[in-house]
Formats: sequence, structure tokens, C-alpha cells
Amino acid sequence: MESTAGQLLLGLLLLAGLFLAVGLGFAVLVWTPMPAAGRERRPGSYRDRSAGYRAWPRAVAGRLWARARHGRLTLLVAGRLSQAVAHPARLVVSGFTAAVLAGSLLLMLPFATASGHGAPPVTAMFTATSAVCVTGLVVVDTGTYWSGFGELVILLLIQVGGFGIMTLASLLGLLVARRLRMRLRLGAQAETKALGVGEVRGVILGVLRVSVLVELAVAAVLTWRFAVGYANSWSHAGYLGVFHAVSAFNNAGFGLYPDSLMRFAGDPLICLPINAAVIVGGLGFPVLFELRREFRTPRHWSLHTRITVGMSVLCLAAGWLAIAAAEWTNKATLGPLGLADKLLASLTTAVMPRTAGFNSLDVAGMRDLTLLIHDVLMFIGGGSAGTAGGIKVTTFAVLGFVILAEIRGEPSVHALGRRLPSGVQRQALTIALLGVAAITVSTLGLLALTPFTLDAVLFETTSAFATVGLSTGITAHVGTAGHVILGLLMFVGRLGPATAVTALALRERTRRYERAEERPIVG
Amino acid sequence: MESTAGQLLLGLLLLAGLFLAVGLGFAVLVWTPMPAAGRERRPGSYRDRSAGYRAWPRAVAGRLWARARHGRLTLLVAGRLSQAVAHPARLVVSGFTAAVLAGSLLLMLPFATASGHGAPPVTAMFTATSAVCVTGLVVVDTGTYWSGFGELVILLLIQVGGFGIMTLASLLGLLVARRLRMRLRLGAQAETKALGVGEVRGVILGVLRVSVLVELAVAAVLTWRFAVGYANSWSHAGYLGVFHAVSAFNNAGFGLYPDSLMRFAGDPLICLPINAAVIVGGLGFPVLFELRREFRTPRHWSLHTRITVGMSVLCLAAGWLAIAAAEWTNKATLGPLGLADKLLASLTTAVMPRTAGFNSLDVAGMRDLTLLIHDVLMFIGGGSAGTAGGIKVTTFAVLGFVILAEIRGEPSVHALGRRLPSGVQRQALTIALLGVAAITVSTLGLLALTPFTLDAVLFETTSAFATVGLSTGITAHVGTAGHVILGLLMFVGRLGPATAVTALALRERTRRYERAEERPIVG
Ligand SMILES: [K+]
Ligand SMILES: [K+]
Repeated sequence: MESTAGQLLLGLLLLAGLFLAVGLGFAVLVWTPMPAAGRERRPGSYRDRSAGYRAWPRAVAGRLWARARHGRLTLLVAGRLSQAVAHPARLVVSGFTAAVLAGSLLLMLPFATASGHGAPPVTAMFTATSAVCVTGLVVVDTGTYWSGFGELVILLLIQVGGFGIMTLASLLGLLVARRLRMRLRLGAQAETKALGVGEVRGVILGVLRVSVLVELAVAAVLTWRFAVGYANSWSHAGYLGVFHAVSAFNNAGFGLYPDSLMRFAGDPLICLPINAAVIVGGLGFPVLFELRREFRTPRHWSLHTRITVGMSVLCLAAGWLAIAAAEWTNKATLGPLGLADKLLASLTTAVMPRTAGFNSLDVAGMRDLTLLIHDVLMFIGGGSAGTAGGIKVTTFAVLGFVILAEIRGEPSVHALGRRLPSGVQRQALTIALLGVAAITVSTLGLLALTPFTLDAVLFETTSAFATVGLSTGITAHVGTAGHVILGLLMFVGRLGPATAVTALALRERTRRYERAEERPIVG
Repeated sequence: MESTAGQLLLGLLLLAGLFLAVGLGFAVLVWTPMPAAGRERRPGSYRDRSAGYRAWPRAVAGRLWARARHGRLTLLVAGRLSQAVAHPARLVVSGFTAAVLAGSLLLMLPFATASGHGAPPVTAMFTATSAVCVTGLVVVDTGTYWSGFGELVILLLIQVGGFGIMTLASLLGLLVARRLRMRLRLGAQAETKALGVGEVRGVILGVLRVSVLVELAVAAVLTWRFAVGYANSWSHAGYLGVFHAVSAFNNAGFGLYPDSLMRFAGDPLICLPINAAVIVGGLGFPVLFELRREFRTPRHWSLHTRITVGMSVLCLAAGWLAIAAAEWTNKATLGPLGLADKLLASLTTAVMPRTAGFNSLDVAGMRDLTLLIHDVLMFIGGGSAGTAGGIKVTTFAVLGFVILAEIRGEPSVHALGRRLPSGVQRQALTIALLGVAAITVSTLGLLALTPFTLDAVLFETTSAFATVGLSTGITAHVGTAGHVILGLLMFVGRLGPATAVTALALRERTRRYERAEERPIVG
């Protein structure tokens, strides 16, 4: 890489553009303009609304200044916080930000590292973001760089992040469904009805129950195997088992071995429990909840469950076949293994892009073809309101159903015998295209800032956006600016889709004066 | 590349899948099921319709066989042709197929090559497809491999292809607009009204006039420059001038020099006329027609013209800036040039991805970053109903307006003060996502079949789909299967978007029994 002025300038420009775009996008998504007090809001007036957007930064600055002068800053903060709780999408973003900050501070403590020197801020922050967003990309080796305390902090952050996203996304889903039902019944002016305490409690307890159950079961099998099969002491085996079980169920992909699962590529008693935990965690709580009640009666399943389960099976089968075929003779991956090991290792490799991030084969040794297959699978991701990332299988399927309906020339979009509301179609389109845009822009940024090639960079950005955590090994070497880009991508990828959909679906839809219709030629 | 059984199998599978997908897609798009004679078609019945789809292949086979037995095959062919003319999308596809076949046969003649041996079928077919689809990807050097006759055939194919796509796409656009107006007035059951002879004549003459005017003007400047500046004889300079002018206006990208325009990188009198011809040709006939009438009154411009002109300026400016910044110090491209030459060469490089395919810089020497910038610009492409390729700037802009409306929470999508019909939104989505799918699948296929890396392969497939014709140099080396994939991509990319939109917009929309609505969780 030539580190000249022109390239530096470009890199900075791209970085600034990315920050601006992400910041603005989030601001627009999660922050609705507040009508000035004492002034009637006229619905249907476009100028009013856009003026609200424009006047907003100045008004906030003024209010901040006024309150700071009167020493009421604490009041301001408390007020803002309580306001945030009233707005679910904001709550999610602030909660995750707080978790990342707290985790960063803990990881910067001297005794969090094995060397006792304290981690540099960028390393601590990147690791905390990666853990809270259950991604698994790392800049230092988890097992050797951090102390036991550091590993515990990471485990805690993973559990908090995974539990948080499952709970909050499920609650957001409930809220959206509730609001849409109410709007249908009472018209567009219906008051926001918060969720009842009972409902919230039910979701939290349900997520807790499933998490603990699956994690305990998987940890038990892993502990037994680590102790008996690999001559670890029972206490150490128990620690390894719990860490990997929590990391797997929360699709975090953090491991305690420097080669992830590569040394266990041929051991079904390690790989299969981890695969199972990854798949179960990636289905999402709404699906798990429904499956527990009606596992034996698929014809009672909701559309969401049917799409999620069907697409998951499809992606797994297609990925298994494609990865096995592409890597069968590659000497760096499947080539040297026996038939059974080949099948097991390619299955594990196919499970991980949705979106766990362990690897039992050497990612850096894979063919370009396999990396691109990974990119596609990672971008699609797993189930909504779970620990999986990506745009989610339902989003992908909805877009497919829209195209199918368009090709068939049908006026409304149908999926498995049900009609898809037009709102959900536009939301799926928005999520998918904003995802493509985020990955494209950050790929351009990393290409400008680092000497790495497109295949590696695209793999890393897709892995970060989809919070997968697989890596060709370049994450540690992309520099501070690169770490900031990847960290932002993880955060946006983890929270963006779910909060965006909620913000979009809950937004007040005011009718404006209708303008004349005109049709440009497309295609 | 390891050429083992497993990889070959995968390659063949991918290839078969691609063929199947493309073939099926086209069949579904351009071929509406014909109701059996003497049987009433019940509108609103879904089973009937889907039965029509399924029974169709058998019925056709039976009819073919029956007619062949009675020696009425010629009658059958004539009947099919006349039927094709009645269906505009089919007419376009059959016309371009006929032109490709005729061109291939001509290029296989012994005296079409400089060596006098006759080109192999794959070379002839690939070159003919590339010329008719005005792409410019080549497997042999145009100036040295073909004889004068061969070059004339190529020039003719370019002119036929460019004229054909401009005329036909403009007519299709008119037809769609007409049909939509009628449907609005008379309801869904309106009879297809063909375009009047006067309208068709008007479009053909208009395209002819614009083509001849621009091509003559550019050819004159180029001829003068080739003769005076580079010491060619006037007759040879005239030949060079006409060839490059036709190739530029039709966005074909075929050149007579083995290094495209690289030797003229610093000559504004060669580069600027070619750039101008490329831009004008790429705006599309509807825009040119409107600009000629109302160039001085932009507030009278239609939505289509405003979007096309605005997006073109935007893409050019952004591309110029990005490419100049990315390549400024690259020793293989802009590095050794002076300031003025740097600006000229980067401008030319920014003009060419939409979608001309000349190059005045060495594509193989560009950074990965620049190649990805190219990929984005090429995919977006130029204006509809012109010689440009890609998904078209209007398609891209429509998707942007949809996302903007969704983020703002507006119930209907507005663009520059007009409302966008929902049909055009879904069509834009379909075009863009099917384009992404075609490029992804063929990139996977080429990665499986060839030893090249992702950056080069993605560049080549995007270039083929968007009929750009820029190349990092691997097109000549991707093998027969690779040539078939790229040839298909050019054909699909050239005709797919325009015919798909027409087929989609003209399709009879029968209302089916409405099913219950259900909303899956997305994102
Ligand atoms: K992960
Ligand atoms: K071209």
C-alpha cells in the first residue's frame, strides 16, 4: 500500500462519508421530530414536518445550553433517559451503547489482560462491541490475550448482548403487531399502547428459560467430552464447556482456542452440540416459542415460523452441498480429511455463516468461490428476533415472494397461502438495500485504507455486518480506522434491521396532499 | 486451479443451474400461457391459470409433432413469427437472436478473418453477441484478428444492435404508457391497442436522425484528428473515425487498436468527442427527443428526463472524483501523467462505465478499490431506451425514492414533486434484484470454473451484464463454458430489463380470491 497524501485524503473522505451516512441514517430512523410545545401540529402539512426536522438541531442545542446554564444537566439526562424508554428503538440503541461502553471500561482494567498491562482503548472497545453484538471478530486471541477475568467479562457481554437482542427484538415484534392490529381497528389516530407488564415478563422469562436450558444441555455434553476425550481437569473442562455453549447459543463465535474449532474438525461430539446450539439460537425466540407449543402440528404454524424453518433448512442444505463440492479436494481444507470428517466439517462450515462464526476449517485457505458462497449465506443470515444476524431469512424470502408475484403478474403478493401486507414488502426492500449499501461503502473504505484484496475485504465487511465473526485473518491488521469501520458495521448490522423495521412500522403515517402521478421508464 | 472430478461436477451443476434459471426466467417473462381454443377463460380462477402453465409444454410438443407429420412446418414457423410480432417482448428477443445468429455465420466465413482460416464457432458467436448487444468484450483483438470484411460485419452488427435497442425500447416504452393510460380509463379489461404506423415511423426516423447526426459529427472530428495528428491517410483516418464514432455512440466499446484508447489517454481531441458520443447515446432516445424540443426549459421536462439527466451528472461527477482520488498516485495508471492528462484520463475512465467500454487507462493495473467503484457504476448503468446497459439510472433512483419514503414514513412514494405508481416500484425492485442474482450466480460459476480471483471475475461479470465491455483481460482465458456464461449474461443484460419491464407492465392482471393477510417479522 502506498501511503501517500492522495490516498490518505480519500480514506478520510470515505470514512467521514460513512460516519455521516450511518449517523444520519440512524438519526432519521430512531429520532422522530418533536413538535414544538404550544404549537398545534397540522397533520397533512408537509412544510411543517420538514421544518421540524430542520429546526431540530438548533432547538436541541439551545435547550441543552439553557439547561446547562441553570445546572439542570442531571435533570436533562434523566429526562432524556425516561423519554428513551418510551421510544423502544431508542431504548435498544442506548442499551447496547451502554453495554459496549461498560464492557470497554472493564476490559481496559489492568487485570483484564494476561500481561497485566491493560488493553489499549481501541482493542478493548472493538472486543466489547464484538462481544455485545455477538459477532466474534477479534483483534487479539481471546484465550491467550485476556486474563480469566477478561474472559469472564467477554462471556458476560455475550450473554447480555444475546439475551438483550432476543428479548428486545421479540418485544419490538409484539409491539409492532399490537400497533398494527390497533391501527386496523381504530384507524391511524390510535394512541400508542405500551405492552403490559405481564407480556414483558412472559417474554423475559421465556427467553431466560430457553437460554438456560439449551446452554446447560450443550455445556454438559461439551464438558463431558472436553474432560474425557481431551484429558482436561473437570473444572477446566466445565469452564470450556460453559464458555463454548454460551458463545454458540448466542451465535457469538468467541472461542478459547486460537484456531477456533479447527482441532475438533473431526469430532462430532464437539461439533454437533455446538452446531445444534447455533441453529436453535439462530431461529429466533418467536419461532422457538411457537415450536415448543406446536412442534407436532406444522399446519398450525404461523407464516413467520414456516418461512423461518423452511428457509433455514434450505440455506443449510444448499450451503452444505455447495461448500462440500467447492472444497472437496482443496488441500488446505477438506482435502486431507476422510469421508466422514469431510461431511462433518462441511456441515459445520455450512452452519456457521448463519451467523455463529466458529470455524473448523481454515477460512484463509478456502477458495474464492467458497468465500463468496459464505458472503451470500452470511448476508441472508438467520431468523428474526434471535441471536442470528444478517438481513434475516424472512426478509430474503419476502423479497423473493415479491419478485415471484411481479413475474406472475399478480396484483398482491402471496406467500404460502397468505397475503403479505405492502408495508412489510417495503420494509424488507429497505433493510436489504440499506444492508447492501452499508457493505458496499465500508468495502470501498477498507479497500482504500488497506492493502488487502476484494475477496478478503468483502468477506470481512459482510462478516461484520451480519455479525458472523468469521475472518480470513485480516481483521487484526486493518488499522485503527479499519477497526472503527468494522465496529460500526457490527453495531449497525446487529441493531439496524430490527430497530429500523420497528421505527418504520411504528411511525405515524400522515397523509399528505397527493401529488400528480408520473411514471419514469425503468429497466 | 485443480481440475478434479469434484470441481468439474460443481462447475457443470452451476452452469446447468444458470441455464435453467435464465431459460425459465425468460420463458416465464416473455411467454404468457395461451388459453386453449374453444375453452372459456374464467378470470379470477387461479387453478385454471396455473394449469395453463403446466399443460403448455406438452400441448406445444403435441402440436409441433402433428404439424411436422403433415408437412406444415413452414406454416408453423410463419405462424409463430407473426404471433411473435404481436407480442413486443418476444419480437425483441427473436430479433436480437436472429441478428446474433446471422452475425455469427458471417464472421465464420473464411475471408472474415485476417488469416483467412475462418473463426471457430465459439469465437464468432461470442463476438457477434458482444457486437449486437453493444458490449465490447472480446476474445480476440478486433483490429488484427478480423479482416476488413470482418470489421465491417462487426460495425454493422453494432449499428443494428444499437439502433434496434433504441427503437424497440422506445416503442415498448410508448406501448406501456399507452396501455397504462387506457387501463386507467377503461378498466382492466381494455383491449390491446397496437401503436399506430405514424408513431412507429416517428420513432424510427427520430432515432435514425439522431444516430446519423451524432455519429457524423463525431466521425468528422475524429477523422480530422486521426489524419492530421497521427499521420494516417485520409481514407484510413475516415475509416478509423467512422468506426470509433459508431462504436462510441452505440456504447459498444469496440476499437481498432489493441490497447483501446490507451495511446490517446492525453489527447482531448480524441477522448472528448468519444466521451460526448458515449454520454449522448447513453441518455436514451426518450430523453434526447425531449431535450431537443425543450432544452432551454428544464421546468417542462418530464420526470423521466429530470431523473435521467440528474443521475447521469451525479454518477459522472462522483465517478470522476472517486476514480481520480483512487488512482492519482498509481504508477500503472494515472501516476506517470501530468495534471491535465490526469484529469482527462480520469474523466474518460469515469464516462466509460456507463456503459461504453473503451479504456484510456490500463484496467488490469487499477487498484481493487477502483475496480469496485467501476462495478457499482457499471451496475447502475445509463439511461433507459438508449444504448446504455445496467439496471439504468432511473431504476436505481426509483429504489432510492422508495427507501427515502419508507424512512420518512410516508404512505406513498414521491420523486421530484411527482408520485411514483406502485407498479413501477415493484418493477424496479424486480429488475435490480434479478440483476444482482444473475451477476452473483455467474460469478460463482466463473469462480468454480476458472483460476481467477473475485475482483477480476466480479468485474468481468458485471461488465458483461451491464454490456460495458471493460475487461481486466481475463475474458479471453475463461474457456468455452466461461464464454457461454458471459455471452448469456450479455444477452440477458441487454434485453432483460427492458423486455421484463414491458412484459410485467403489459401483463393482464387478474384478481384472484384474496387470501387472509399475515405479517412475518422481518429484519
Ligand atoms: K457471530
Ligand atoms: K459497451
